[in-house]
Amino acid sequence: MAAQKAVGIISKPNKPELSGIVPPLVAWLRKHRYEIVGDLETAPHCPGLEVVARDQISSRALNLVIVLGGDGTLISAARAVAKAGIPVLGINLGSLGFLTEVPLEDLYPTLEAIENQCCNVQVRSMVHCDVFREAQCIAQFDALNDVVIGKATIARLNHCDVYVDQLFVSSYQADSLIVSTPTGSTAYSLAAGGPILMPEVNAFVITPVSAHSLTHRPLVVHDSSEIEIRARTGEDNAYLSIDGQIGMPVLDGDRLHCRKSQYQVKLLHTQGTFFDVLRAKLKWGQR
Amino acid sequence: MAAQKAVGIISKPNKPELSGIVPPLVAWLRKHRYEIVGDLETAPHCPGLEVVARDQISSRALNLVIVLGGDGTLISAARAVAKAGIPVLGINLGSLGFLTEVPLEDLYPTLEAIENQCCNVQVRSMVHCDVFREAQCIAQFDALNDVVIGKATIARLNHCDVYVDQLFVSSYQADSLIVSTPTGSTAYSLAAGGPILMPEVNAFVITPVSAHSLTHRPLVVHDSSEIEIRARTGEDNAYLSIDGQIGMPVLDGDRLHCRKSQYQVKLLHTQGTFFDVLRAKLKWGQR
Amino acid sequence: MAAQKAVGIISKPNKPELSGIVPPLVAWLRKHRYEIVGDLETAPHCPGLEVVARDQISSRALNLVIVLGGDGTLISAARAVAKAGIPVLGINLGSLGFLTEVPLEDLYPTLEAIENQCCNVQVRSMVHCDVFREAQCIAQFDALNDVVIGKATIARLNHCDVYVDQLFVSSYQADSLIVSTPTGSTAYSLAAGGPILMPEVNAFVITPVSAHSLTHRPLVVHDSSEIEIRARTGEDNAYLSIDGQIGMPVLDGDRLHCRKSQYQVKLLHTQGTFFDVLRAKLKWGQR
Amino acid sequence: MAAQKAVGIISKPNKPELSGIVPPLVAWLRKHRYEIVGDLETAPHCPGLEVVARDQISSRALNLVIVLGGDGTLISAARAVAKAGIPVLGINLGSLGFLTEVPLEDLYPTLEAIENQCCNVQVRSMVHCDVFREAQCIAQFDALNDVVIGKATIARLNHCDVYVDQLFVSSYQADSLIVSTPTGSTAYSLAAGGPILMPEVNAFVITPVSAHSLTHRPLVVHDSSEIEIRARTGEDNAYLSIDGQIGMPVLDGDRLHCRKSQYQVKLLHTQGTFFDVLRAKLKWGQR
Repeated sequence: MAAQKAVGIISKPNKPELSGIVPPLVAWLRKHRYEIVGDLETAPHCPGLEVVARDQISSRALNLVIVLGGDGTLISAARAVAKAGIPVLGINLGSLGFLTEVPLEDLYPTLEAIENQCCNVQVRSMVHCDVFREAQCIAQFDALNDVVIGKATIARLNHCDVYVDQLFVSSYQADSLIVSTPTGSTAYSLAAGGPILMPEVNAFVITPVSAHSLTHRPLVVHDSSEIEIRARTGEDNAYLSIDGQIGMPVLDGDRLHCRKSQYQVKLLHTQGTFFDVLRAKLKWGQR
Repeated sequence: MAAQKAVGIISKPNKPELSGIVPPLVAWLRKHRYEIVGDLETAPHCPGLEVVARDQISSRALNLVIVLGGDGTLISAARAVAKAGIPVLGINLGSLGFLTEVPLEDLYPTLEAIENQCCNVQVRSMVHCDVFREAQCIAQFDALNDVVIGKATIARLNHCDVYVDQLFVSSYQADSLIVSTPTGSTAYSLAAGGPILMPEVNAFVITPVSAHSLTHRPLVVHDSSEIEIRARTGEDNAYLSIDGQIGMPVLDGDRLHCRKSQYQVKLLHTQGTFFDVLRAKLKWGQR
Repeated sequence: MAAQKAVGIISKPNKPELSGIVPPLVAWLRKHRYEIVGDLETAPHCPGLEVVARDQISSRALNLVIVLGGDGTLISAARAVAKAGIPVLGINLGSLGFLTEVPLEDLYPTLEAIENQCCNVQVRSMVHCDVFREAQCIAQFDALNDVVIGKATIARLNHCDVYVDQLFVSSYQADSLIVSTPTGSTAYSLAAGGPILMPEVNAFVITPVSAHSLTHRPLVVHDSSEIEIRARTGEDNAYLSIDGQIGMPVLDGDRLHCRKSQYQVKLLHTQGTFFDVLRAKLKWGQR
Repeated sequence: MAAQKAVGIISKPNKPELSGIVPPLVAWLRKHRYEIVGDLETAPHCPGLEVVARDQISSRALNLVIVLGGDGTLISAARAVAKAGIPVLGINLGSLGFLTEVPLEDLYPTLEAIENQCCNVQVRSMVHCDVFREAQCIAQFDALNDVVIGKATIARLNHCDVYVDQLFVSSYQADSLIVSTPTGSTAYSLAAGGPILMPEVNAFVITPVSAHSLTHRPLVVHDSSEIEIRARTGEDNAYLSIDGQIGMPVLDGDRLHCRKSQYQVKLLHTQGTFFDVLRAKLKWGQR
């Protein structure tokens, strides 16, 4: 008898069209003998579906999580299931995403491919961040895209000192400072002038946003390094942001320690190369 | 009985002040029982010195090559001795270089440190480039900084197609396309908008210069990749440039295959971190 | 009998060294028969000085305002006195500023030069901003450097639509959108990738910060144009910032109308060109 | 009796499809009582057409020149007829151009609009360049887009000193230095990192390409200024390029004097704003 198969469904909020998408998907999965759970955003679209909070979904022994949404939903889902090592399939509901490259019309062919094991897993590194206040680690995060320290007030630039493996790099005065993974290099870091890192490059890129010093350029460091950022915000607060989705205030003297996470995100994909996505998303001239 | 020690001296052309520098250096080295050879630029400053052409100097079993000059001279010397694995010490005669960080006044303390083995070796990767015309490999180069394909005529943009590990990346229309090592990332690539790569990052960066498409950004690829550039120059020629120092014309259809070189450059240095040099050269705000 | 001469002094907060600077300055001015008023920051350093709040200082018929501080203090002072057309002399207490180019040691020679009318006045344009909420103009500002609309929350990009002279330019998704005068072009706009505009260019530059679309580049428009920015912030607020010093929250649907101010700032200076300052501040290679 | 109407046709080389376009165009123009001349590229497509060399076409009293091609052809045509003040209508044969925004299918409606005077003329400034060698002016050019001084050899950076109205700006070490009109600001200067200038801004932008100094940013100067560039090329040549189409070698010590041309280009257009073209060409997000 075959091992039980189980799948989770995570959905983007406020997408009424999901009511036409989720029920047939659930039917297909049941027909193929999957156990199914859905998060709180998915549940309303499919009465009778077992519901599990997104941050509890990784406690279930799932073979796969299907994300119905865009890159934002996938990133959130990926953080939720990375610790459990569950592969993620992103189905984009709108325009092409860097991560959710499978369009809705390819949902069932892609699931068939997964059933037939004709599917690749792309492993993406994450960045872990410990937040220290005085001697204590007060928070920990794992980000798929980036760890960003930004100004919380309008007028003042953000000051911070950066160290790599305990070596002083520089003081930065900037709107924000981004520590990005290769995956995040096509997100906020790119908008801020950073380079594109292929997923397999073992590196982070430290990209300042609107640095006061014009010679402060994006810095690519090996991902075996520890990057320490010391906030020098004076009486103002700064704000720490994880994948642009969650975060917390940072006080003067707080220290962020960023290093490669022990967790990774496993992205399923069946078609197209990293460059195919870049060319399509960035509208690079085709050959 | 101790093994024989031997050192080579390579000098920057047209530096009359070397006549005051080379003789005492030679005297110091002789006193410390080194055999000494100098290149053709060094010889005039020290009658009696054994002379060897720069590209022959690696045929001698040297423990060390001392470069008197700037980054340009060091890069040229490094290419000459990399195959033989000879360590290089760069003494800058003018302003601080990214590679020749030891000022003249630290020459003898640095040599003492080398004698006492209180000296670090920093290993820098190189990029190898095979030039194919039709079925034939017509030239081969190893560059410490960069391989650049640029337009040879004024009016026309350079066209080329880029592949990484045989996957099509994009067509580029640009003044030039740079394939840079981490070492080269602080040279021409930086001027063209590229990021700074720390020396230990296992990557190359592909940086276009004045790309016609505004979304063509620097691309960081793993240095285990092969980067292929296919020239599409029509009736015009393009020009291949190695470290901005040597080169050859490139014709329509020629293919450049760039990959990590089997050779490395061993830079001796006694002081300062990579970041110390960046802060000084780029005038980053000090803490 | 000569007309009465009057001067105001505006000082940077929290600069104890002013206690050694203000009293002799006041003595010099009295000796040269100036009436003198100081703002609240100046007063503690010189008992007996007549005190006027900074925003009231322009109600006094002053020939000159002396600013002791840096660019930030001068910009604040300039906004305060521009309506009254009072010339401003900036004395920098620390490092060279773009606007406060006169170092402390040149204070008295500069005042002598002003006495002898050997002094140039450089007129700098300002940008006026009307803030409309529904049919009503709820606030008005004049900025010397820039009008900035930025995100007030961390995670979301700022959306806005831009019109020039009622023609639709584009929707922008960015951290901030800057409307800068030529004077402001060396401040925040420069950090965000904008060009440098010489003071006499009759233009504003619209510079997005970290625009989501990589092809959104700084746009230079004639300063006879009206630039309208329509905030599309949804449920989030945005924040309007004037010279990075004052501001107010902006709601979804608010419209900013930016045009050339009827006021101008008159900067006194005795030496050096605009380019001399650029070369010194930006550390451009000297000839 | 109405004044005689006359039109010139200038065509892009090597476009066989013109044989299907030129004859009906000539028939239409004849029907509407125009005298017609064509350049050497147009002639082969329409036997019997009076032929005039492109650089002689402005000697004919023409009411209009129709350009069949792309931006490159229009720029060349515009330089040829600007002195005579003849308006130019650009019909693009391929993809949308910044200047040739009228697609082929709108050719006859546009001509009807011109007949009915329902057509706008957009006046574009040009930059004039005098080339001085020692005391002598050895060449003169008027450019619609840009005057570029670039390196003629591969390895060496181009050195030059720049003055604005006889005031020293800076020495530049760069691949090229561009002096661009507002029209040219969307061409090479944009690729090199320059801002977009609206056509009515009275300014030039000086944009360095891959400047050695990272703080050398595009500089916008009033177009009443004279920009002087002094070549410091040593033993190498540099190369002067006008609109990327014509040019000449530049020697060490040569001086380029750039100022606003006395000539202007009159572009006919019937539809669309400058921003419509920007949004379409640069693929800016639509509202």
